[in-house]
Amino acid sequence: MSTTRQEFIDFFPQLTEVILSELPAFGATPEMTSRIKEMIEYNVMGGKMNRGLSVVDTVKIMRGESTLPADVNEKAMVLGWSVEWLQAFFLVADDIMDESPTRRGQPAWYRRKDVGILAINDSFILEACIFRLLKKYFRSEPYYIDLVELLHETSYQTELGQMVDLLTAPENDINLDRFSIQKHGYIVEYKTAYYSFYLPVALALLMTGTPAEAPVFQVAKDILIPLGVYFQVQDDYLDCYGNPEFIGKIGTDIEDNKCSWLVVQALDRVTPEQRAILNENYGRKSPAVHAQRVKDLYVELGIESVYRAYEDNAIAEIQDKISKVDESVVPRQVFTAFLNKVAKRTK
Amino acid sequence: MSTTRQEFIDFFPQLTEVILSELPAFGATPEMTSRIKEMIEYNVMGGKMNRGLSVVDTVKIMRGESTLPADVNEKAMVLGWSVEWLQAFFLVADDIMDESPTRRGQPAWYRRKDVGILAINDSFILEACIFRLLKKYFRSEPYYIDLVELLHETSYQTELGQMVDLLTAPENDINLDRFSIQKHGYIVEYKTAYYSFYLPVALALLMTGTPAEAPVFQVAKDILIPLGVYFQVQDDYLDCYGNPEFIGKIGTDIEDNKCSWLVVQALDRVTPEQRAILNENYGRKSPAVHAQRVKDLYVELGIESVYRAYEDNAIAEIQDKISKVDESVVPRQVFTAFLNKVAKRTK
Repeated sequence: MSTTRQEFIDFFPQLTEVILSELPAFGATPEMTSRIKEMIEYNVMGGKMNRGLSVVDTVKIMRGESTLPADVNEKAMVLGWSVEWLQAFFLVADDIMDESPTRRGQPAWYRRKDVGILAINDSFILEACIFRLLKKYFRSEPYYIDLVELLHETSYQTELGQMVDLLTAPENDINLDRFSIQKHGYIVEYKTAYYSFYLPVALALLMTGTPAEAPVFQVAKDILIPLGVYFQVQDDYLDCYGNPEFIGKIGTDIEDNKCSWLVVQALDRVTPEQRAILNENYGRKSPAVHAQRVKDLYVELGIESVYRAYEDNAIAEIQDKISKVDESVVPRQVFTAFLNKVAKRTK
Repeated sequence: MSTTRQEFIDFFPQLTEVILSELPAFGATPEMTSRIKEMIEYNVMGGKMNRGLSVVDTVKIMRGESTLPADVNEKAMVLGWSVEWLQAFFLVADDIMDESPTRRGQPAWYRRKDVGILAINDSFILEACIFRLLKKYFRSEPYYIDLVELLHETSYQTELGQMVDLLTAPENDINLDRFSIQKHGYIVEYKTAYYSFYLPVALALLMTGTPAEAPVFQVAKDILIPLGVYFQVQDDYLDCYGNPEFIGKIGTDIEDNKCSWLVVQALDRVTPEQRAILNENYGRKSPAVHAQRVKDLYVELGIESVYRAYEDNAIAEIQDKISKVDESVVPRQVFTAFLNKVAKRTK
């Protein structure tokens, strides 16, 4: 598996080169080309690449091969990178909207002095690259239009999720009345689960010859969306209760007024007095005083054990669904591979 | 023709309804749906709609019919609106990047108190709507993928033009060294001409059965891109020399540090002394003093007559190209209809 990761990384310059080599036909000067190169490398590279790699892994499982023929392997990597590229498009824009200072341990792209608000247009260019790459590698495949439609639909879902997120938890306007279990569920499903969990598998299914209208896409969705939601709930949990040494950062969801799973569960259980404490302390910028008061309240409400119960139930439900998958249609391993990476993770 | 405009406007609510009626399947609440409705209506409606209407006009000319069969008319209007929708996507984002206070006589979308930086994500949603509409109306047409690819390519071209525009004339950093005739040419061609002039005709050609690889697309490009460039040069000219009563605004390109055709022509002709005057006065916010000094310099350099010569030459070249069009392939009227609307316009 570690060979695959390196192979996947090593393939990236080839894709960048496809984009750059087309630019003269778009009238681009060397200055434009070198700026676009830097922009792509800065934003697409550098994540954990789990989403992209899972496309390649799923294609292997679907075909029952641990090593793919060269042409299949190349196509799977292109689709894997298209997921990473899509994520780069979203993250560049999200960082502007969230006013995030950093991303993957470096300044967020829009924070660079030579970029600024130009980053909005750069995010569009990142999105456009995805369809250049699909055209280059899949134009003559019968499922080409299905790939394009899937990426359009997933983008739309993610954008709808982002809209609700921004409306529910705007940066500088704290109002817990807007938070609810239902809204949290919508945000995590639409903003994260579709593109992170369903998309990689759906791309792999299309690439391995599954017709776009086959029922297996709904089967995959019914398993992978709850799994993606569980993953994001874990993220919210780990932000507060994870070991900073494992997760690589100190969580700030409380200070940042995030519509976290923890706070919507708390809101569902508070007395009026406890609610007043949340109102006064959530989203305030001082961890030592306000965030700690919120954490104390989570202890009073037993939120950690609410999480444990949620987690056990989520895993059991997903396992149950996987056990019902008809293996003549799709190997269960497609789904267990995801579940095993996610279940009870500590980072 | 005025009937067509009204018909085109009257068709718009039907398209909005397509988008809104799908939203429950995307889990949207009534609140989300009503916000998206308002966002679409605020941003897509309200322009002159020349771009959208020109798709319908071109389909009529291609088919040699002044009245189209109902199903053809509907499809032509969908494609016309897809151009308007694409423009809305760009304008919402451009206004943020340019810090524009108004658009079409109302506050720019991002300036509304209930919107702000959320407008970035709204521009993505506007873009996504285009592909929802194409899927709804063209999914079973053999040229469906060609429409999708054309819209992708045109978006990319426009984004590349916007990138060069933003790099050449950033809001608060005046440096005329970055301006040149060549860069101006790139910006007007890529940021405006492709989506405003080539795209409507190319969509109409695809819709009337022209195969995507037919040479007529290059013929159309060779005429419509220079026409679109001429149109944008006129815009730059009219900003300074047009009658504010006709064009509906008082030009501020000089104050706004725009890479206008006028200033790049001036830069091409200045003595070092005149260049110093430009450096000191271009992009400064006081029209009475600085902008007037730039306008005086334009008079000294005879820029207006440079424009007259450019205009006569541009029209003659375009007419010449149109006269060479093989009418068995495409009626010349497709192009003369555009030229007649643009040539020697005063507003």
